[in-house]
Amino acid sequence: MVKVLILGQGYVASTFVAGLEKLRKGEIEPYGVPLARELPIDFKDIKIVGSYDVDRAKIGKKLSEVVKQYWNDVDSLTSDPEIRKGVHLGSVRNLPIEAEGLEDSMTLKEAVDTLVKEWTELDPDVIVNTCTTEAFIPFGNKEDLLKAIENNDKERLTATQVYAYAAALYANKRGGAAFVNVIPTFIANDPAFVELAKENSLVVFGDDGATGATPFTADVLSHLAQRNRYVKDVAQFNIGGNMDFLALTDDGKNKSKEFTKSSIVKDILGYDAPHYIKPTGYLEPLGDKKFIAIHIEYVSFNGATDELMINGRINDSPALGGLLVDLVRLGKIALDRKEFGTVYPVNAFYMKNPGPAEEKNIPRIIAYEKMRIWAGLKPKWL
Amino acid sequence: MVKVLILGQGYVASTFVAGLEKLRKGEIEPYGVPLARELPIDFKDIKIVGSYDVDRAKIGKKLSEVVKQYWNDVDSLTSDPEIRKGVHLGSVRNLPIEAEGLEDSMTLKEAVDTLVKEWTELDPDVIVNTCTTEAFIPFGNKEDLLKAIENNDKERLTATQVYAYAAALYANKRGGAAFVNVIPTFIANDPAFVELAKENSLVVFGDDGATGATPFTADVLSHLAQRNRYVKDVAQFNIGGNMDFLALTDDGKNKSKEFTKSSIVKDILGYDAPHYIKPTGYLEPLGDKKFIAIHIEYVSFNGATDELMINGRINDSPALGGLLVDLVRLGKIALDRKEFGTVYPVNAFYMKNPGPAEEKNIPRIIAYEKMRIWAGLKPKWL
Amino acid sequence: MVKVLILGQGYVASTFVAGLEKLRKGEIEPYGVPLARELPIDFKDIKIVGSYDVDRAKIGKKLSEVVKQYWNDVDSLTSDPEIRKGVHLGSVRNLPIEAEGLEDSMTLKEAVDTLVKEWTELDPDVIVNTCTTEAFIPFGNKEDLLKAIENNDKERLTATQVYAYAAALYANKRGGAAFVNVIPTFIANDPAFVELAKENSLVVFGDDGATGATPFTADVLSHLAQRNRYVKDVAQFNIGGNMDFLALTDDGKNKSKEFTKSSIVKDILGYDAPHYIKPTGYLEPLGDKKFIAIHIEYVSFNGATDELMINGRINDSPALGGLLVDLVRLGKIALDRKEFGTVYPVNAFYMKNPGPAEEKNIPRIIAYEKMRIWAGLKPKWL
Amino acid sequence: MVKVLILGQGYVASTFVAGLEKLRKGEIEPYGVPLARELPIDFKDIKIVGSYDVDRAKIGKKLSEVVKQYWNDVDSLTSDPEIRKGVHLGSVRNLPIEAEGLEDSMTLKEAVDTLVKEWTELDPDVIVNTCTTEAFIPFGNKEDLLKAIENNDKERLTATQVYAYAAALYANKRGGAAFVNVIPTFIANDPAFVELAKENSLVVFGDDGATGATPFTADVLSHLAQRNRYVKDVAQFNIGGNMDFLALTDDGKNKSKEFTKSSIVKDILGYDAPHYIKPTGYLEPLGDKKFIAIHIEYVSFNGATDELMINGRINDSPALGGLLVDLVRLGKIALDRKEFGTVYPVNAFYMKNPGPAEEKNIPRIIAYEKMRIWAGLKPKWL
Repeated sequence: MVKVLILGQGYVASTFVAGLEKLRKGEIEPYGVPLARELPIDFKDIKIVGSYDVDRAKIGKKLSEVVKQYWNDVDSLTSDPEIRKGVHLGSVRNLPIEAEGLEDSMTLKEAVDTLVKEWTELDPDVIVNTCTTEAFIPFGNKEDLLKAIENNDKERLTATQVYAYAAALYANKRGGAAFVNVIPTFIANDPAFVELAKENSLVVFGDDGATGATPFTADVLSHLAQRNRYVKDVAQFNIGGNMDFLALTDDGKNKSKEFTKSSIVKDILGYDAPHYIKPTGYLEPLGDKKFIAIHIEYVSFNGATDELMINGRINDSPALGGLLVDLVRLGKIALDRKEFGTVYPVNAFYMKNPGPAEEKNIPRIIAYEKMRIWAGLKPKWL
Repeated sequence: MVKVLILGQGYVASTFVAGLEKLRKGEIEPYGVPLARELPIDFKDIKIVGSYDVDRAKIGKKLSEVVKQYWNDVDSLTSDPEIRKGVHLGSVRNLPIEAEGLEDSMTLKEAVDTLVKEWTELDPDVIVNTCTTEAFIPFGNKEDLLKAIENNDKERLTATQVYAYAAALYANKRGGAAFVNVIPTFIANDPAFVELAKENSLVVFGDDGATGATPFTADVLSHLAQRNRYVKDVAQFNIGGNMDFLALTDDGKNKSKEFTKSSIVKDILGYDAPHYIKPTGYLEPLGDKKFIAIHIEYVSFNGATDELMINGRINDSPALGGLLVDLVRLGKIALDRKEFGTVYPVNAFYMKNPGPAEEKNIPRIIAYEKMRIWAGLKPKWL
Repeated sequence: MVKVLILGQGYVASTFVAGLEKLRKGEIEPYGVPLARELPIDFKDIKIVGSYDVDRAKIGKKLSEVVKQYWNDVDSLTSDPEIRKGVHLGSVRNLPIEAEGLEDSMTLKEAVDTLVKEWTELDPDVIVNTCTTEAFIPFGNKEDLLKAIENNDKERLTATQVYAYAAALYANKRGGAAFVNVIPTFIANDPAFVELAKENSLVVFGDDGATGATPFTADVLSHLAQRNRYVKDVAQFNIGGNMDFLALTDDGKNKSKEFTKSSIVKDILGYDAPHYIKPTGYLEPLGDKKFIAIHIEYVSFNGATDELMINGRINDSPALGGLLVDLVRLGKIALDRKEFGTVYPVNAFYMKNPGPAEEKNIPRIIAYEKMRIWAGLKPKWL
Repeated sequence: MVKVLILGQGYVASTFVAGLEKLRKGEIEPYGVPLARELPIDFKDIKIVGSYDVDRAKIGKKLSEVVKQYWNDVDSLTSDPEIRKGVHLGSVRNLPIEAEGLEDSMTLKEAVDTLVKEWTELDPDVIVNTCTTEAFIPFGNKEDLLKAIENNDKERLTATQVYAYAAALYANKRGGAAFVNVIPTFIANDPAFVELAKENSLVVFGDDGATGATPFTADVLSHLAQRNRYVKDVAQFNIGGNMDFLALTDDGKNKSKEFTKSSIVKDILGYDAPHYIKPTGYLEPLGDKKFIAIHIEYVSFNGATDELMINGRINDSPALGGLLVDLVRLGKIALDRKEFGTVYPVNAFYMKNPGPAEEKNIPRIIAYEKMRIWAGLKPKWL
């Protein structure tokens, strides 16, 4: 059994819940779930024990009501908690959402205490953070983080940073928990949080779930790198119509995303080929199915120049939702093994920007095999 | 030092020679050569000792004259043998070439004897087969092969099969040699030839050099497989304007190619997703730079269907030419180690249809690491 | 009121019937119908009075039952005739269909008499031919056509040719009718049929409905031609999973299609740029939504070479079904005006290979304006 | 004879000069020049009489020296004036250029007087403005424009606006001239300048030369519009590595471009389909050959949704350079006919944002035919 608590009940989390319910009922195949039925934990053993949001229109509703806004083929949920109020700290500032957070009526310290208290009741093993993309500054050291909480510094802290801090306190109190961060904010990449996690019996996976064009580009670059082709330039565009793309029209948030996307180039190629890799635009009718365009130019043998042009239509939320089905189970496994701090073999496959900070991106197929080995499974091709 | 003999002095072999000369002179970087400067054998230590063709317009010319027809930036060659007459056996039947082969004036057995005699003089370590694509039937067992040679059965045998047979006799006589087959005809995949190779101290690499859309498609399918996405269908088109695409307008030759291209789908995915993967057409103005188009549809989490559309402009001959720079050096290494028969770790990375017959395609990135280990190099990411 | 009779109740005709019914009921907008509500004939005034097929599984069924196999959102039809038995003449030979035709039990002359007799009862204004693509040889002169019918030459004649001949006799008897041929068989391009049509008060529109990649390629080439860019080469691939793509795996049928597709290059550019434009493959899971890939290289100013790569996912049957909503109305208008023979201004916009034989393809936007003028409408941009 | 003066001797103008020289010498075909040899003015009769720039590294150099920086296959020029100093007014502020303008040492009024005086000596018929893209505000009425010049308002005016003003004074003095504006700044679309042109015997063509993805998108949209397909959304990305793309990383300049690009959607479709059409990014290694990606979704008949994905590699400067060969000749023709003010039939084909302000974009093929008629040529397909 894995008890899961969700932070940010948007498109991704709702797709996770909807798909999980259908998996439980045997209505769909586990496509898009990398480890499918290979793990010792069955889909039926994943239970949603709580969910938080900051959208006034969601808070207080049953989880099933919110999920139905995204997937109207979901009638009822095996476990159907009420959406509770989280913290926002300006993370939804450019979105058409009326936001309401614990911090509106109390200090951050009090908000953290409230969260820890509620979580202790709900007793999750794994806390999943699927907030909207934030503009953030990493802390680097634990002291600055603690000071910011102490000083109630609402300008300095993001929702994710507060949640991760609360998760550490909760883990300490409970004797262990896992925090899965699939948004760009540095948690597994911030030494402050990794240290905090180690000290407080928290497992941290992160950062930024590896979906969409970026891991694909990484694999294409690996393909070129292993043939020693010299990449002249890489351009990658994305455009979509969901709330996350709308969020990214905010410059600060866009920067957060650009960073995690761009790091793959140097990590994989070994040199920083000129590139333009950014979340690019919002176009409402595209909905959750984004359009991606990638252009790569490279030099082959004897000075020849080749070109690749890749287009895709990719459902954004299902891609990440499927990974979550693995991540919550792997979180429980790490927790049972007491691998506190962050777990690179998991991050390397599932995250765009795998923590800890000193580690790099490696080709996903290699990462996949290493992750399988970590998870106690036989490698597939190695 | 690696002494190399070429069979089929067309676009690929001429690009190999041209690029190698520029590498020797330090005029280009070794892009497109996967192992670049990592192997213990320097580019300067590769020497072309002989070259064969069946085009009347090439036989008797200096190698440099023929190379210049393809790459006019090559002025002179460090080693510049004369093109000798090989065997054709109808392999150029649909091409605008006036063909002339040893078998026009003697039996196949006599032709083989002639080749072995000449090769013994030229003393190559590695024989590279870059003939045009042939329509062929594998032998399966050695006896039928020997009988076909004995019976002078010109309908049954292809040029490549005769060359590989001659290579075995040559290796036996010399005490070791390597035969690198980068065209689709089964050599490393034909148990008849693998057995023959083992018995006669011949190393065989093959079959069909892994360039172009197919290894790329393989890596894209690996990318999907490792995320457990269900591939609904795969379409892959190629069109080019070089002699190889012209050759493929012949139905029998096309079938040879279709086989090696299609095998990747089941090998990588584990199920035979519906696919249309064929060499498709000839369009003269495209020249050696082919156009490829790939379309893949797959099911992601929660029943979502995604699509990828990949286009490329890829220089055909340089892609294979660059691999040859590695393959002749690896051939020498295998020869020195006396690994007679075929060498799967090399084939798995460098060949579209890696022999022996019982082995399968694996993701190229995995194959790359295994090949490195075989070659005595450190894996890059493993 | 336009009374319509259908020949070949497959995907296209069923989409036409389904969409028309929804238009009648106001359930959909007339998207994909070029002249939408601009013509004096309302959608409600189009009545399906008869339908023919040669699939044993369809003959004798209600039209609605057959339509439902393709579009299960159609419950009932305003007009719901029974499917009658037509002629096949080997047109479905490579398809998984158990075929049954009038000619199986009578001579072609008797079959024609039967059709004319039935049609006279059903009294259609417009007969629409949506048979599967056939391998055919045009007649060129009327005498040979009449002789083939007389001689019961089932090898020489195709279903479409027999239908068109019957339509002429029917028109003669009735004092006027229209025959709309949206498949590649030459009718409007065969002087034999155009002469026959003129003599018998038949309007003929044809040949091969202008849908899919070909008219799009035509407009792209017009775009280049008007800027005097020199087209070096054009490649166009199509792959789909409907019955028409399966039919095209037959070589003879493929040739019919290739002809009408390729003619656009010279017609639009004024020179025959090297091209590879063919229906390419069948891939069942793609269904009715084909994948197209187009590659065009051209020379711009000062010797620069540019490239376009165009991919599309296009619903095949709706594209043609929408055109039929116009064509049956325009057929009635031509009939009322007694414009017997063929009508180039209609063909030039709606057909891939606009008849009569001596006429050429012109840019579609120009053809559109000329067609509007012919139809009595104001040009849109002229 | 057409005497031409250039404002902004960058990539476009240098390609124009280089290509023109090769045309004069018969070294290239007039590809990319829409009217090629159809106009009564021969390529040899176009003479470059002057050229201006604001790059300190160019001022004072011979035109041939500057052209050679872009096209080193140009050895000498038939007419080789020295580059003179123009005005910049901050137009190159975000570019790696050391700028120097007349206005650095005098008032704008004095600068204008200087230009008019110099031009009167050089005596051009046609002045071509190929400055870098500027951030601008249209004037709307002549009075505000005159006041801004009078007040030496360097913040309010752009280089193009000052040049166009000077052109009007020059035309007045000379009794006629033409000003061709191929950058986005409103001149033909600014009533202030159109009025000024009419009063001072100036022909104005503009604005923003119709090259690249935008006119192509316009023709694709026309293709859909004429079939009454409903466009759901349009995304269009551009990325390039020339100075113009670098200029567009400046937000204000980007906005100028976005406006002219986006106007086509509503003009062609008749409704404002959701779209994201922007110059997108700068990626240095792409050089002058930009990468474009277009995605269009539309509804076809019976509710079917189709998709187009278009990629291109397009040489930026040659596309515009080729149009200039026509525009300077058409400018002379308009001048000879005394069609002062702006000429919509020319603008509608050659400009992204055809003036005057009250006119709209129409499909280019229609515009092409109307332009031919205006130019005294037979329409090609009408």
